[in-house]
Amino acid sequence: MAIQQTEPLPSWNDGQAKQSIIEFVAKVTKDGESTLVPPPERIAVFDNDGTLWPENPLPFQLAYVLDELKRRTPHEPTLAADLMVQAALNGDLKKLLGDSYKGLLHVLALTHIGMTTAEFRLTVEDWLASAAHPKSGKPYDQMVYQPMLELQDYLTANGFKNFIVSGGGADFMRVWAERVYGIPPEQIVGSTAETQYELRDSGPVLVKTMNHLFVNDKQGKPVGIHQFIGRRPIACFGNSDGDQAMLEYTTINNPYPSLGLIVHHTDGEREYAYDVKPQGTGKLDQALQAADYRGWTVVNMKTDWQVVYPFELS
Amino acid sequence: MAIQQTEPLPSWNDGQAKQSIIEFVAKVTKDGESTLVPPPERIAVFDNDGTLWPENPLPFQLAYVLDELKRRTPHEPTLAADLMVQAALNGDLKKLLGDSYKGLLHVLALTHIGMTTAEFRLTVEDWLASAAHPKSGKPYDQMVYQPMLELQDYLTANGFKNFIVSGGGADFMRVWAERVYGIPPEQIVGSTAETQYELRDSGPVLVKTMNHLFVNDKQGKPVGIHQFIGRRPIACFGNSDGDQAMLEYTTINNPYPSLGLIVHHTDGEREYAYDVKPQGTGKLDQALQAADYRGWTVVNMKTDWQVVYPFELS
Repeated sequence: MAIQQTEPLPSWNDGQAKQSIIEFVAKVTKDGESTLVPPPERIAVFDNDGTLWPENPLPFQLAYVLDELKRRTPHEPTLAADLMVQAALNGDLKKLLGDSYKGLLHVLALTHIGMTTAEFRLTVEDWLASAAHPKSGKPYDQMVYQPMLELQDYLTANGFKNFIVSGGGADFMRVWAERVYGIPPEQIVGSTAETQYELRDSGPVLVKTMNHLFVNDKQGKPVGIHQFIGRRPIACFGNSDGDQAMLEYTTINNPYPSLGLIVHHTDGEREYAYDVKPQGTGKLDQALQAADYRGWTVVNMKTDWQVVYPFELS
Repeated sequence: MAIQQTEPLPSWNDGQAKQSIIEFVAKVTKDGESTLVPPPERIAVFDNDGTLWPENPLPFQLAYVLDELKRRTPHEPTLAADLMVQAALNGDLKKLLGDSYKGLLHVLALTHIGMTTAEFRLTVEDWLASAAHPKSGKPYDQMVYQPMLELQDYLTANGFKNFIVSGGGADFMRVWAERVYGIPPEQIVGSTAETQYELRDSGPVLVKTMNHLFVNDKQGKPVGIHQFIGRRPIACFGNSDGDQAMLEYTTINNPYPSLGLIVHHTDGEREYAYDVKPQGTGKLDQALQAADYRGWTVVNMKTDWQVVYPFELS
C-alpha cells in the first residue's frame, strides 16, 4: 500500500466527519490487523445527486430534459403541442409528478429514447458544453463537490474501488463521470432500461428504449448494487432517505468494518440548506434519524467543508 | 507497461490463432503507434459456456439444477409431485424445452429463487465441492480451459480488463469466477433478475426472484455489455451463434483495432466435437460463416491447444 505523502482531504475542516473517514481507512488498510480488508473487498458506493453534486434548483438530469425540450420545441410541432411538454416548459412540476410521475416519465421518454446510445451521448455533451447552472453560472459538470473529489482520491489511493450508485440514468452519468470523477463507465450503477441491438449499414448500434426500466433508488439501491457489483460495499456515501437502504446494506452486520456517511445540506449560502422539507428531491428525514442509532457519520456541509466547489480554489 | 518476461500462451500451439492474438495485443499496446489503445478502453469480453469451460453433456448450471432437484426431491413431497421436476429427473429435455422453455424456467425458478443471495451462494459452493463431471470425473470448476486461462492472464498483463458476458446466471458464476478465473463479481455480466431487499433481524438480505428476468444471450449480449460495462469492448471471445451479436458489436466499425475469436469444438476425444448440430446448446453455424467475411479468428481446439484442462498439466 502506498503511503499517503500529503495531508489527505485538504478541503475538509478538522472535526468528527474528517476524523471518522481517516480512522476508518486506517483501520481497513493496516497490514497485520484483524480489521484489514483485502483490496478486492474495498468497495465504496457514492450516491450522485446531492452527494457528489447539487440537486437544486432541479436535479441536473431534469435540467437537461427541460433544456432539451426548449431547444427542440421550436423545430418540432408535435413536441410543442404535447401537453406534458407545455407543463414542463411552464415549470408545472405538480402536473409532471402527479399520477405516479406519468408526465415525468413521458418527458423523460421524449428526451431519452428512440436515439442510439452514441447520439444520446453527443446530445448530453453538447448540453454540458453550453448550459449554465442558474445559481453559479458555471457549467453543471464544474459543480461537483471538491471535498468529495478528495474523498474519492483518498479512497482510490488506499486500494478502494469507487462506484456511483445513483437514481440518475447510467447513460447520462457515463458521459461525464470518467472525466469529472475518474470513475469509468463500468463503475456507474444507475437507472437503466434495455437498449435494442441493430446492425445497420453504418455498423452496430444500440437504440435506447424505456423497456424493463430499473429505477435505482431507495430499496432499488441494494438491488442494483447486487446486480451490478455483486458484493457488499464497505463504505457508503449518501445524502437522503433514498440512500437509507444502501447505507443499511453496507453497514448492518457486515463481516468487515464499514463506514456509512450522510452529507447534510446545511449551507444555504454556498449551496442549499434543506433536509425534511426539500424544495424538490433529496428529502432527508428517516435516514438522518437512523444515522444516530446506526452510527453513520453526518457531514455538516457548512462547517465541515472549507470549500464546496473546485472553482473556489482558484 | 510491464514487459512479458516469459513466453505467452504456453499451452497454445504455434499457428494462426496464437499468432493473431499476439499480433493484436502487440498492436494495441505499443507506445507511440497510432494503433495504441488507452488502457481504460482495453475491454475484453468472454462468453463462458463452451468458451471458458464445456457445455456438454449439459450446460453446467443445468447440471446444478438437476443435482439440486435430485438432492431435494426425497425430502420435499411437492417437488416430487411436480411434473416438470419429474421430466427433468427423467432427462426428458424435450418436455423441459417445449412451449418456449416453460418447463426449464419452472425448474430454474425452483432452484434459483425464494432464497437469499447468500443462501444461494452456499448451495452452489456445496454443489461444486461434491459434484463430478460425468466425462472427466473432476469437479466442474476444474474443467476450465487452460489455454483460455493463459489468454486471460496474458490480456491482464497487457492492461486489459476481462469481463465474462454469458447467458449463465450472474449469481451462479460469481460464486466461483473470482477464484477460478481471477475475475471479480463486478466484471461478471450474465443473466440476471431483480432481487428483493429486506432488512431482517439478522441483517439486510436480498431475496432472489425471477422478476425482470434479463437473458444475456444473442442480441442480449451487446445490450448487456452496454448496460453493465457501458463501452464497446475491443476483444471478444465466443464459441456459438449466441455470441455473434457481441462479436459484431466488438469488431465492426470499432474506432480502435479489435479482435474477434471463436473457439471451434473440434476435439471429440479430449473434449467434445460439434458445431452446426450440437447435442444441446452451443450451435455454431451463422457465426462460423461470419468469421470468414468478418475476419474473426477461429480456434481449432484439436490442433491449436496442447492441453485442454489444467489437470492435464500435472
